[in-house]
Amino acid sequence: VLSRIKDSKKAVIVGISPGSKGEKVDTLYKKVCELGYSPEAFEDFEEMLDKVKPDVAVINSYFCDHAKIVLKTLQRKIHVFVEKPIATTLEDLELVKQAYRGAGVSLTAMFGIRYKPWFLTASKAIKSGEIGMHRLLSAQKSYRLGSRSDNYKKRELYGGTIPWVGSHAIDWVYWFSGERFQSVFATDSRLYNKNHGELELNAQCQFTLTNEVMASVSIDYLRPSKAPSHDDDRIRVAGTEGVIEVRGQKVYLINNKESGIQELPLVEEGEIFEDFLKEVAGEGKCMVSAEDSIYITEICLKTRQAADEKRVIYFE
Amino acid sequence: VLSRIKDSKKAVIVGISPGSKGEKVDTLYKKVCELGYSPEAFEDFEEMLDKVKPDVAVINSYFCDHAKIVLKTLQRKIHVFVEKPIATTLEDLELVKQAYRGAGVSLTAMFGIRYKPWFLTASKAIKSGEIGMHRLLSAQKSYRLGSRSDNYKKRELYGGTIPWVGSHAIDWVYWFSGERFQSVFATDSRLYNKNHGELELNAQCQFTLTNEVMASVSIDYLRPSKAPSHDDDRIRVAGTEGVIEVRGQKVYLINNKESGIQELPLVEEGEIFEDFLKEVAGEGKCMVSAEDSIYITEICLKTRQAADEKRVIYFE
Repeated sequence: VLSRIKDSKKAVIVGISPGSKGEKVDTLYKKVCELGYSPEAFEDFEEMLDKVKPDVAVINSYFCDHAKIVLKTLQRKIHVFVEKPIATTLEDLELVKQAYRGAGVSLTAMFGIRYKPWFLTASKAIKSGEIGMHRLLSAQKSYRLGSRSDNYKKRELYGGTIPWVGSHAIDWVYWFSGERFQSVFATDSRLYNKNHGELELNAQCQFTLTNEVMASVSIDYLRPSKAPSHDDDRIRVAGTEGVIEVRGQKVYLINNKESGIQELPLVEEGEIFEDFLKEVAGEGKCMVSAEDSIYITEICLKTRQAADEKRVIYFE
Repeated sequence: VLSRIKDSKKAVIVGISPGSKGEKVDTLYKKVCELGYSPEAFEDFEEMLDKVKPDVAVINSYFCDHAKIVLKTLQRKIHVFVEKPIATTLEDLELVKQAYRGAGVSLTAMFGIRYKPWFLTASKAIKSGEIGMHRLLSAQKSYRLGSRSDNYKKRELYGGTIPWVGSHAIDWVYWFSGERFQSVFATDSRLYNKNHGELELNAQCQFTLTNEVMASVSIDYLRPSKAPSHDDDRIRVAGTEGVIEVRGQKVYLINNKESGIQELPLVEEGEIFEDFLKEVAGEGKCMVSAEDSIYITEICLKTRQAADEKRVIYFE
């Protein structure tokens, strides 16, 4: 986000504060100064909000504290741009939902992968009817594990691999299909997580959506360190008239119009923070809406519950 | 199978009969004659078995009749090479299981995709430790729908898309992991099946296996008619030390030993019927054993039940 703020020239960074107890922001502070800003440093984020009165708060702390920080920010009628998940418990999410309704400001969670050229291209092709009616979606998030800090090792702080890593893939399913989630069955495992405590190394989720659409989401930290990239994001959508896939930052389409596999030319990359600022400025709606951000968080938390309780969970 | 029989010169086709009421075998009969055989034609398969007393019966009729034909064949101590699924009900499968135990002959279901170079290559790499401990498997069977005959349009005759199309992918999960299945949640849909009656157009299954291994299987008839091949078989296995994939008849490996994505050189293709005949001749064991064939059929039928009843089914 930092370099994008710099490039866009639409925002100035005026303050920095830890959001969680024990969180270090020294490195971030240095980076921001190197970009030419002179932010005021705080120890308490509420003090910062009250003193510098920013238009927008960019929130990215220990995941368990996001909801609390979002609440305090919404109460002050400050726009919220927050790392997902917005909340790590359904109770916290309910509080955020209520606070958002009354606040009259914008809120977007960082589902920025939607703006990658390959995802935008696939979305456009689906919307223009290239695959007919979508019936079956399979999405994948695969990350390198590396060596992660202690806040990833406790469920209470981290919130779980499904809400953090999986939320992107769940978001794509929602965005591409436009359907509502009806039920989920999910499973996860902490085995072989190389001393990462309670961190779930891999998970699988199977969703039923409206109109008998079905989706599976595969999530893992099993990407080898020597892999050519940190992540391996994929989605395949099979429809009545064609199949489209995002894989290796490319988009492949097979349909009944053209023979063989077509690699689609990519549209230009977008930028979620720019899009969010556009909404803040009253110049349109951010593609990742507050409603989407809150809804996907709810689906993620209930999916985690399905895995925890080893049962099918039905959404309202 | 026909041309393979011809090539191998280990078998002679001595008789042909319909196995199901209303089944036409004229085209098959012609093809066999064109290959240089002079099979005797029958109207009743039991009469054929009694008269020509073959060593091996190759069974491929309406799927609902497989179990009955297998039973009659086993009772005559004739070796059985049968199209999957062996049975379309759990009751029938139990009868087959019991009959097999006492028969003292060989039985193999046609899970011949295992013998394709890309699957053999991946299996070899996994067994030699290239990906460490397997944790997460995602398999896919995607077929063209085309226009199918009436026996695909009734569940009672067809048995369902999960046992027929899905069984291959479920077999790969079992074969690659070596784990036992513990539970399944599954879903399927008949929407948009283009006048194919009760045929399920697509399905998704999520399995929990022993040792907290998880697997998802995606099944569809959504492959466009203009796709470059009839089917699109895939499996991805993520392990503690690497990720291997079968896709587009190729095998890709990423692990912690070598940088980047390695495309593995393919081993030679095998042949399931040859392998089966080897077992019949007492020269070893067929890679697709009777135990595997019966077990995968059971898993498939219970997976279909999970989809029918929209609930999690636990295996014994």
